[in-house]
Amino acid sequence: MRSVWWEDNTVKMIDQRKLPAEYQVVTWSDYHGVARGIKEMYVRGAPAIGAAGAFGLALAALNSSAGSYVELLGDLERAYDVLLNTRPTAVNLRWALDRLMATAQEVPDEDPGVVRVRLLEKAQALADEDIAINRRMGRWGAALLRNGDTVLTHCNTGALATVGFGTALGVVRAAIEEGKNIRVLADETRPRLQGARLTTWELIRDGIPVTLIVDSAAGHFMRRGEVNIVLVGADRIAANGDVANKIGTYQVAVLAQENGVPFYVVAPTSTIDLTAPTGDDIPIEEREPEEILYIEDVRIAPSSVKAVNPVFDITPSRYITGIVTENGIVHPPFDAGLRRLFSKSGPDS
Amino acid sequence: MRSVWWEDNTVKMIDQRKLPAEYQVVTWSDYHGVARGIKEMYVRGAPAIGAAGAFGLALAALNSSAGSYVELLGDLERAYDVLLNTRPTAVNLRWALDRLMATAQEVPDEDPGVVRVRLLEKAQALADEDIAINRRMGRWGAALLRNGDTVLTHCNTGALATVGFGTALGVVRAAIEEGKNIRVLADETRPRLQGARLTTWELIRDGIPVTLIVDSAAGHFMRRGEVNIVLVGADRIAANGDVANKIGTYQVAVLAQENGVPFYVVAPTSTIDLTAPTGDDIPIEEREPEEILYIEDVRIAPSSVKAVNPVFDITPSRYITGIVTENGIVHPPFDAGLRRLFSKSGPDS
Repeated sequence: MRSVWWEDNTVKMIDQRKLPAEYQVVTWSDYHGVARGIKEMYVRGAPAIGAAGAFGLALAALNSSAGSYVELLGDLERAYDVLLNTRPTAVNLRWALDRLMATAQEVPDEDPGVVRVRLLEKAQALADEDIAINRRMGRWGAALLRNGDTVLTHCNTGALATVGFGTALGVVRAAIEEGKNIRVLADETRPRLQGARLTTWELIRDGIPVTLIVDSAAGHFMRRGEVNIVLVGADRIAANGDVANKIGTYQVAVLAQENGVPFYVVAPTSTIDLTAPTGDDIPIEEREPEEILYIEDVRIAPSSVKAVNPVFDITPSRYITGIVTENGIVHPPFDAGLRRLFSKSGPDS
Repeated sequence: MRSVWWEDNTVKMIDQRKLPAEYQVVTWSDYHGVARGIKEMYVRGAPAIGAAGAFGLALAALNSSAGSYVELLGDLERAYDVLLNTRPTAVNLRWALDRLMATAQEVPDEDPGVVRVRLLEKAQALADEDIAINRRMGRWGAALLRNGDTVLTHCNTGALATVGFGTALGVVRAAIEEGKNIRVLADETRPRLQGARLTTWELIRDGIPVTLIVDSAAGHFMRRGEVNIVLVGADRIAANGDVANKIGTYQVAVLAQENGVPFYVVAPTSTIDLTAPTGDDIPIEEREPEEILYIEDVRIAPSSVKAVNPVFDITPSRYITGIVTENGIVHPPFDAGLRRLFSKSGPDS
């Protein structure tokens, strides 16, 4: 199962808004559709958004009627802006779009036809690479899990949040492949309930034991000693190790530290943004209050109530035990460790 | 507005399960109905449950066909057990039922007719006293709020959680009556959404500014300095000051301490259980997983998923700045302060 893929000159994605009630695949035949799919959260999860953006740009190239290379680059820049402006917090989208733009700019002989082919190849390569990267993160992270562990997780960080396999849930999958018994305690993750709807759905499909709790109960189970480790994903990691992730992640991190539970972030290096010195430099997306006020079509609050809906928060790096990347696990001090990931000498473990 | 009251030899209560969509009053003509009203959460909130239990016992006396005093006491003991066993965590229910049983046992001449009259008088007195107590707590607590403060609260602790006025929300009301501008940030309070459904409803009715957030966002707003004080209620307070309250209270308390935000519990002395040495001695109610899996009739998780639903948690006293009671504010060390509340010398402030 992949969350997003290229098929018959269109971009296909699972409509995650309909899960678990309904498994439906949508088909976008132009990049505006792909942008809508990202913005309206047909597809979500930082790595999956990155792959969707890459396919969207390949689709823009394919559909462009530009006769010249320069004209085509202009069309691509317009598509780049539309795709980039769908969601502000995750940095993987910009990272993927930038890699496709670089590919377009490097085409020899400036041949528009070659650009179209190369962009699709590159988008495909990024999608395949995402799964390979997840498997490498899984192997690094699996070493952190002991047989019999209960992993608390927040939001969905599985196959649906990536092209396939998953980040934090990829670590769980890898540990299980190694023969360990692992149980997942899944925060339901209000307001959009990615934990209740998506994490449980994909873990049940794989036969991985999962128990659903409300977000408010995470601390209760940590205090009672029923959680061995917390694994979450990330939408953007600042140069100092501060992490932007789904709203509620900060709370889980504070409670983990208070209860002596290790707290690990699992994210590919494409999530790291060295241009953001700290978490305060990461834009936090605020979505419409209706996400809180309605569950499906059921209104749960009075009609005149005001609600605010920040959908990400910042977890300061002092609460983070380690960051699991495809190139190894980074430990504090994160600023040096993260910089080392991008240097020739490699990570610290 | 009262949450529960006596009328025409029946017990009436607002059906809080239907709010805010529908305001409906239910009528119970026997104590089994009242027990059902408590168990199925037509009425909820520790003080309101206490008052409902007292009215239920008065109704049992009224409806009893017992010809003798001894026979009537036997009927009352059966009703006591049924009413007490509806919900295990809040102690106010036992406290109220015990006071009615003591009243029945003190009736002169052991006249069944006098028992019936006295129990109703006592239940009425307890209900009226609840409002008076809330107003006294309000005056003590209002001194903690400064003009312009934002109060974060969890669950519903207002008129609906008591007979009227409220505990934590009573403090907000009292501060506003004193002329202060106070704004409330309301946790929605999964799974039953008492914050989204009830707190917002009654604050909007009173014209008190309220903003709704998901439970996971409370820490985010505290970290950003947007919360001046946290006020919550309690279902039971142990002798050492540990507090049982709605699931999620513990998390809010830890996050308040981490962010230097004062965290106060507002509860009448009837909530204090000196027979429970610590929070570990308080039974935590676990309710059916369906409360998590469905919103109204909409299923939000896969059909085969397992969920656990503890509906209260324990906040260790070390996270609590103070406990506001009708007899003053108790500060650490709580064991001595709470004992003093029940002694002749009175509380410490």
